[in-house]
Amino acid sequence: MSIEQRISFITLGVADLARSREFYEALGWKPAHAQGDIVFFQMNGLVLALFPREELAKDAAVPDDGSSFRGVSVSYNVRGIEEVAQVLEHCRKAGAKIVKPAQDTEWGGHSGYFADPDGHLWEVAWNPFLTITEDGNIVLGNG
Amino acid sequence: MSIEQRISFITLGVADLARSREFYEALGWKPAHAQGDIVFFQMNGLVLALFPREELAKDAAVPDDGSSFRGVSVSYNVRGIEEVAQVLEHCRKAGAKIVKPAQDTEWGGHSGYFADPDGHLWEVAWNPFLTITEDGNIVLGNG
Repeated sequence: MSIEQRISFITLGVADLARSREFYEALGWKPAHAQGDIVFFQMNGLVLALFPREELAKDAAVPDDGSSFRGVSVSYNVRGIEEVAQVLEHCRKAGAKIVKPAQDTEWGGHSGYFADPDGHLWEVAWNPFLTITEDGNIVLGNG
Repeated sequence: MSIEQRISFITLGVADLARSREFYEALGWKPAHAQGDIVFFQMNGLVLALFPREELAKDAAVPDDGSSFRGVSVSYNVRGIEEVAQVLEHCRKAGAKIVKPAQDTEWGGHSGYFADPDGHLWEVAWNPFLTITEDGNIVLGNG
């Protein structure tokens, strides 16, 4: 078991999704998706996501207490649903703290979270609605 | 003036650089560079950097007071030194708060920082020691 050296998403937790979306659009960036309470921007092989801060804390199953939770997560996406638990276990053996075991998500995916030694949050996710290219890049649709 | 839709670095501020490097190496990731107090991992078109948390706060010219500073920054690298100030000004007009104006860095580059509406830190940087490909990816050396 090894994991590829790549990043799929950087998610910024935000207080006001409309305000943040407006800001990043004012930079000249075009969202690829904005559905419900999440906005995705296709970057170079990865995705910048804006997500309400309290929803991000809830998704990662950590308290949004202003101390440990930083309002940011990094994601590593996998190509098969069964890989989520395998990657989390691999990371646990390397010293990661599992903060949320692999499980089905409300949006139809499967994911879990670990924390690095400083508490930086990493999500390991399987998302059936996007493509991972052979070289590990994420490609969103335009819809 | 527009900025490309891409991310060059994600930098995680860490309490113990050796411990963090060991953790990410245990995941199976190989550093491309580790010089002085920074460790770089080449990811898919971007770089994961580990940097002492207090150094990151100092670099961004923000107080490491445990409240506003999250210990994370995202970087947008530019191809020419003069673009740093131009991109920062573009972002300021879009509503960014400039937290550090464009200036020369100790390591021979040129950079500044802005904060998004939630205080997420973005560095705009010119780094003469790395390559930005035509499609906006960052390529580190192996040394």
